[in-house]
Order: sequence, then structure tokens, then C-alpha cells
Amino acid sequence: MSLLDFFLRPRKENTAKVAKERLQIIVAHERSTRGGPDYLPQLKQDLLDVIRKYVAISPDQVTVQLDKKDDLSVLELNIMLNGDKKPGEDDTAQPHVEDKVSP
Amino acid sequence: MSLLDFFLRPRKENTAKVAKERLQIIVAHERSTRGGPDYLPQLKQDLLDVIRKYVAISPDQVTVQLDKKDDLSVLELNIMLNGDKKPGEDDTAQPHVEDKVSP
Repeated sequence: MSLLDFFLRPRKENTAKVAKERLQIIVAHERSTRGGPDYLPQLKQDLLDVIRKYVAISPDQVTVQLDKKDDLSVLELNIMLNGDKKPGEDDTAQPHVEDKVSP
Repeated sequence: MSLLDFFLRPRKENTAKVAKERLQIIVAHERSTRGGPDYLPQLKQDLLDVIRKYVAISPDQVTVQLDKKDDLSVLELNIMLNGDKKPGEDDTAQPHVEDKVSP
């Protein structure tokens, strides 16, 4: 499965709520040497700052997920553009962060 | 298939040449409104600048791929870390850029 196919795969989301425009940023860090630096958590803020150079985004449009498994860490930023708020989010919300660490 | 599974899937690469440490950055931009700005090409340099804050990388360690299909653009940066050069790359190489536009 190519990357394009991965992103074009049908998703279970409620299509009515699907943002008219969406930006997804994924950073996968494979480290075969234990104890090497894990800079993904700090990278998150830098990536948001870079995106803000191109498009205005507020925290409630951003979902952040950090998964770890074996030697792989995957940071995923989902940004709903042009004002589409995630369902149930109000204006004062902080970026919704989910840290999932698999055994 | 989750993102973690996508990145953990077995790859056809020549395992001897697989970098000890690898960073993959993917930006997927879904635009349902035609003619909206496509900032992925400029975003590429900003992303490399952000990564350089954390780890020193030279152009020959970076492969860039930009795919487009329907309303989806996917920018992929593959960075082989700790000096592992891509097979067949010499020191003066520019980032290897592949622009693939599917019908």
C-alpha cells in the first residue's frame, strides 16, 4: 500500500463533519540505537509554528497524537482548516493530545 | 490499518542498507475547494530547517517525494540519520526530488 493509497483509503468518519480542507502531518522516527534522543514531543510545537506561516490555525483545530511501539515513535498532527472545529470543541480548548504507548 | 502498522509494515528494502536511524515526515493536504493554495512545495524547506534544529543533516541524506491525486497532495521527506547515505549518493548530491502527479 503506497502512502497515497493510505491517505485515500475510505475512513469511518461522519462525512458530514469532514473538514472541507485538512492537513495531516506525520513524523515517524525509527531508532535502532536505544536511548537516542526522542525529539518528537518538542518537534510538535515547531511544526505548528511552521504551518502557521502558511495558514492561521487555532488550538481547537488541531489534534495531536503520539504513538510509540518498539523502536518506532509516530507523531501525528491533524489540522482541520478553514475554521472547521472538531466536533464538541469550544474556542478555549487546548490542542487535544493523546499519548498512546503500545507495549 | 493504523499509522503505526503502516510504518511497521515489512518493507522490500535491502535490509543491509537500512539506516540505523531514519526520520520520515509526511504532510498530506486534502483540499475539497479547487484552486486553494498549495503550499507543500515551500513547506519542504521549512520542515528541513526545523529538523536541522534537532539533528545535523546533509542534502544527500534526504529524499523528497511529492505525490498528487484528485484533491490530495502528499509530501514525503525521508531522512537517513547518523551519516547513512542513500545507496549511490555522493557528498555533492542535492536532495533527490521526485514529483509524481497521478491522473
